[in-house]
Amino acid sequence: MRIILDGMGGDDAPVSIIEGAIAATAEISDDDDIVIVGKEDIICECLEKYSYKGSQISVVNAEEVITNDEAPVKAVRHKKDSSVVRGITMVKEGDGDVFISAGSTGAILAGGLLILGRITGIDRPTLAAVYPVIGSEPSLLTDTGANAECKAKNLLEFGVMGSIYMQSVLGRQNPTVGLVNNGTEAGKGTPLTKEAYALMEQSNLNFIGNVETRDLQNAICDVIVTDGFTGNAIVKLTEGMGLMVLRELKKRFLSTSKSKLGALLLKDQLSQIKKEFNYAEYGGAPILGVKGALLKMHGSSDALAVKQTIMKAIPYVEEDVVGTIERAMENVQEMVGDE
Amino acid sequence: MRIILDGMGGDDAPVSIIEGAIAATAEISDDDDIVIVGKEDIICECLEKYSYKGSQISVVNAEEVITNDEAPVKAVRHKKDSSVVRGITMVKEGDGDVFISAGSTGAILAGGLLILGRITGIDRPTLAAVYPVIGSEPSLLTDTGANAECKAKNLLEFGVMGSIYMQSVLGRQNPTVGLVNNGTEAGKGTPLTKEAYALMEQSNLNFIGNVETRDLQNAICDVIVTDGFTGNAIVKLTEGMGLMVLRELKKRFLSTSKSKLGALLLKDQLSQIKKEFNYAEYGGAPILGVKGALLKMHGSSDALAVKQTIMKAIPYVEEDVVGTIERAMENVQEMVGDE
Repeated sequence: MRIILDGMGGDDAPVSIIEGAIAATAEISDDDDIVIVGKEDIICECLEKYSYKGSQISVVNAEEVITNDEAPVKAVRHKKDSSVVRGITMVKEGDGDVFISAGSTGAILAGGLLILGRITGIDRPTLAAVYPVIGSEPSLLTDTGANAECKAKNLLEFGVMGSIYMQSVLGRQNPTVGLVNNGTEAGKGTPLTKEAYALMEQSNLNFIGNVETRDLQNAICDVIVTDGFTGNAIVKLTEGMGLMVLRELKKRFLSTSKSKLGALLLKDQLSQIKKEFNYAEYGGAPILGVKGALLKMHGSSDALAVKQTIMKAIPYVEEDVVGTIERAMENVQEMVGDE
Repeated sequence: MRIILDGMGGDDAPVSIIEGAIAATAEISDDDDIVIVGKEDIICECLEKYSYKGSQISVVNAEEVITNDEAPVKAVRHKKDSSVVRGITMVKEGDGDVFISAGSTGAILAGGLLILGRITGIDRPTLAAVYPVIGSEPSLLTDTGANAECKAKNLLEFGVMGSIYMQSVLGRQNPTVGLVNNGTEAGKGTPLTKEAYALMEQSNLNFIGNVETRDLQNAICDVIVTDGFTGNAIVKLTEGMGLMVLRELKKRFLSTSKSKLGALLLKDQLSQIKKEFNYAEYGGAPILGVKGALLKMHGSSDALAVKQTIMKAIPYVEEDVVGTIERAMENVQEMVGDE
């Protein structure tokens, strides 16, 4: 398998990208290799500082960079020699199996749509994200921001694609699917959630009904389905609260000599909690619904996050998530019809 | 001032209501009194178990109870002798200054609309909530669930009403107002948030622009404006994460004898964190936009939550929040016109 990494995306590129790639070579199979796409001179100069198995990491030059400030569709159309366009094109042409980037979400989505194209039957691809549940296995949240406005049909598709990813990549058998709503009763919510509820109930999904956000940290379901506006609010609030908790614990636990001693005795427990709150542990967010495997990492991804995302990319490809979604969509399309 | 309490609403009524009322009598002025509305026999039997200043607590009988399972509008129309209808009618007729209930949110909202009526110029009243920010002063979140679907004009009104409440009741001068969005840049979001942004920018609000949920625990603004679907997701996720943090800290800190000792040394810090995560500390949620003062408490409110809500009710009435909103709406209406 060949994993394509965007060498230019993210706050700390290319250093964290390169360090993550090197860390991954210690864990991936000898048959797998990693290609870093981006400005060759910068990447090679950085690579030279590390020792690694040369046959497993190579560089493909791309002179342009798409920034977060650019209009995504326009950037993808015009910057043909950017790391994002080159990398996704390699997946399209079979020169790579999966593309991973910490760059502009909009550009990666636009690249997926324009270069790879949508899977037949998918109206809107989704940016899903592994959603950390502290003290338990993570859930998958879809959509987290690719589609701020949704139709009920989109939410159903998110549920189908999310279930396939959850089963194939995270090994969760027959994953449960919940619809984010403002109450658990069947009749609750907006016209959108009511219609989505009806579609999901009729589907083959392991649908458990409406879920309230207060239960997301109780591991209420494996796949959490919502529109991209609400999903974005959920994922960012969860992240913000995690950071707040760590900040407040640290501040208070270091406030007196007695509390410092207490914190010392709780060192193991505190570092475990810190680890579980760390988004980097959970790897990147798959873009599901396009004809190729794409993973978007957080812009602030460090080497650990990059390595973890590479490790998630392997079952994503091996279990043929893209092909499984293509086949599943044939059934969904029969159910909801063409709109 | 006369404070009307719903004696029948909430998981633990009338006990927590009565205990909260008695606790409040120790703090309110001698000129203030509390009326508990509900089944007189049950309430009086319960009251007899406590000692309190008899002149400050009285009971008004209401034989019916509106439950959470009932269709709110129908229940308010038919159950004329319910605690909610009697209590709100007392405010309407000047027999009370504010009505407080831990009962059905829908019924209290419907009662507000049908009995008190909307303030001229207000399209949709809002259920606002004091939003705890750990380690800092709380914000106010509006709307938290009264209006799952909103127009831009509604969001502007929420900002105006929220600012008035924040300034009058929580004493925050010239409160900052933020609009929840999926990015901070001005052009971000859905048609709804884009239109609301434009309206709020032109208004007299101290508008700071779009805010992302990741910054809500950084005390990014005093008044957080969003639609009721997103607001409901935010408030319930915050609550759920707070409970999760307390649960996980407890579980891990009690896991070994060494960690138990550590937790003992951190007792003060841990109980302070627990206190800050406790919704009860922050009092109830005002329903703003109707012609009278209403406060909705959490269904699981304990005596502390009841007492804190009573204490919040006093400036709500004294600072004439309802009248201030009425006057402010005249200006807003001039700006956005009649729709």
